[in-house]
Amino acid sequence: MKKFINDPADVVAQSLRGLAAAHPELRVEVEEGYIVRAGAPQPGKVALVSGGGSGHEPLHGGFVGPGMLDAACPGEVFTSPVPDQILAATKAADGGAGVVHIVKNYTGDVMNFQLAGELAGEEGISVETVLVDDDVAVEDSTWTAGRRGTGATLLVEKITGARAEEGGKLGEVAALGREVNAASGSFAYALTAVTTPAAGRPGFDLPADEIEAGVGIHGEPGRRREKWRPAKELVRSALDAILTAKSFSGPVIVLVNGLGATPLIELYLIYGEVAAHLEERGVTIARQLVGNYVTSLDMAGMSVTLCQATDEMIRLWDAPVRTPGLRWGA
Amino acid sequence: MKKFINDPADVVAQSLRGLAAAHPELRVEVEEGYIVRAGAPQPGKVALVSGGGSGHEPLHGGFVGPGMLDAACPGEVFTSPVPDQILAATKAADGGAGVVHIVKNYTGDVMNFQLAGELAGEEGISVETVLVDDDVAVEDSTWTAGRRGTGATLLVEKITGARAEEGGKLGEVAALGREVNAASGSFAYALTAVTTPAAGRPGFDLPADEIEAGVGIHGEPGRRREKWRPAKELVRSALDAILTAKSFSGPVIVLVNGLGATPLIELYLIYGEVAAHLEERGVTIARQLVGNYVTSLDMAGMSVTLCQATDEMIRLWDAPVRTPGLRWGA
Repeated sequence: MKKFINDPADVVAQSLRGLAAAHPELRVEVEEGYIVRAGAPQPGKVALVSGGGSGHEPLHGGFVGPGMLDAACPGEVFTSPVPDQILAATKAADGGAGVVHIVKNYTGDVMNFQLAGELAGEEGISVETVLVDDDVAVEDSTWTAGRRGTGATLLVEKITGARAEEGGKLGEVAALGREVNAASGSFAYALTAVTTPAAGRPGFDLPADEIEAGVGIHGEPGRRREKWRPAKELVRSALDAILTAKSFSGPVIVLVNGLGATPLIELYLIYGEVAAHLEERGVTIARQLVGNYVTSLDMAGMSVTLCQATDEMIRLWDAPVRTPGLRWGA
Repeated sequence: MKKFINDPADVVAQSLRGLAAAHPELRVEVEEGYIVRAGAPQPGKVALVSGGGSGHEPLHGGFVGPGMLDAACPGEVFTSPVPDQILAATKAADGGAGVVHIVKNYTGDVMNFQLAGELAGEEGISVETVLVDDDVAVEDSTWTAGRRGTGATLLVEKITGARAEEGGKLGEVAALGREVNAASGSFAYALTAVTTPAAGRPGFDLPADEIEAGVGIHGEPGRRREKWRPAKELVRSALDAILTAKSFSGPVIVLVNGLGATPLIELYLIYGEVAAHLEERGVTIARQLVGNYVTSLDMAGMSVTLCQATDEMIRLWDAPVRTPGLRWGA
């Protein structure tokens, strides 16, 4: 295996040390395993905490900052953070107005966030949970009961983050997050398998002319193995899958997301196809984002996420955000 | 070959259409082959134009916008833009105060920008050229007489872009660009070869346990083929190479750059090593940037760039920038 690492066992900790050095505006607690905004907690503000296995960067640690998350807890690669870690992040972020846990729907994450939420409750912190399960490809999967959480996580974190920043209350911010998730659908394709540092070789076998349709962000199998097809056809199939699973009547926010090893020249080409197909179908694009945001280490792949956005969601999407991974506005 | 494309012959044009759809704040002239800020030209402002082969995104088209470039002209993949294209971009960007061409030192780029500059001169546009040749790995290379231009291109574009935005004159902006280039050194490692859409297979052969030290951004050979080593050692060797070629006495701006397929978790780990080694050597880091910025399609690799920065350069680095690929400040 060739990666820019020292020892597979230390990848996450050493990467966090680099994140800390590169971003002094964050407080990175490497031993305790969480990242919070410098100056946290903010008294009176609802805090947003997310987390999950590492290997999806910039998700989640790269989304900590004004207008988005208050804290993130990264587990080991593709491994849920442990309850103590989530609890520590929750306590570090809580400003007395309660904490929203944004949790991608994987069994380990769900269990550990639930336990951490209960422990936080015993310490007097009100916790609401938003479960993200936007991936329309499969109903259940390797590590999931129900649909997997993927690209919509970014939308939930951005939109609820903006609402919390402007003073939204706990129940309202959580309800908004659930609304964004319910309005979102995603579908992914992989061209290559992912290689974790610990395994040292590709997690599945993908012949030179085949792709995985509906792949998950840990390389979980999708709907089927297919022969390679042109981007135009893959985009049409992905949009078919999303628009079959969810009905869209209004303007959408589109995320064209690379899974880690997909060059921008291809992601923009994909976005061009998405825009053309949505226009054909009469679906209006309100906002769009193109880049590698919710990744799967070194997997060459892409996902498309659509979120049917209310005016309020679009307003909150446009609000300023200042994080290592996403940044616009004031 | 598996890529998210339709036809290898149409990749650049179709990707530009996607860029146009995703970024209405840019004017993308697909047929003429250039990208300018919407609203260009800006009367009285020195305009910055860069360009080169496609496949290095977000460089250059993703760096068009307030605080950075006025226009960019992308050639076909790893192929210089033609003089007509550069001339068209130059004319579209020129606001009457002259145009700075920022040119990476590759023979085709240098020739075509020079010709375009002469043609622009005949039409009454004053053009100054800043040649970027920061790669300390090799003296000459496959497509280069002299050192190659790589990561420092971003620094030159950012810093001169800020100076032009605040009213810098033509000669002064160009001189600043040359100063940034002279103060910069870069060194890259590749873990994998790059596959262009046209070739359809890796441009060179790299065994499973070997890496290319000093690789160029088109997969050009570097100094030597090596066995894989831990990131800590690669970083030390890269910094040795840079600090041997250039002497640094003051604070530096550091760019840890991915070559396209390198996950952020690895880039932050690398930055952690860079920060630790520079501290050992007594080199102060003034500013840093970590991400995939000057890429080589799907090559897994990384480069480190150091720029010995004056106070003025740091001030201009911090100035607001609003482009698809780089964005901070107001």
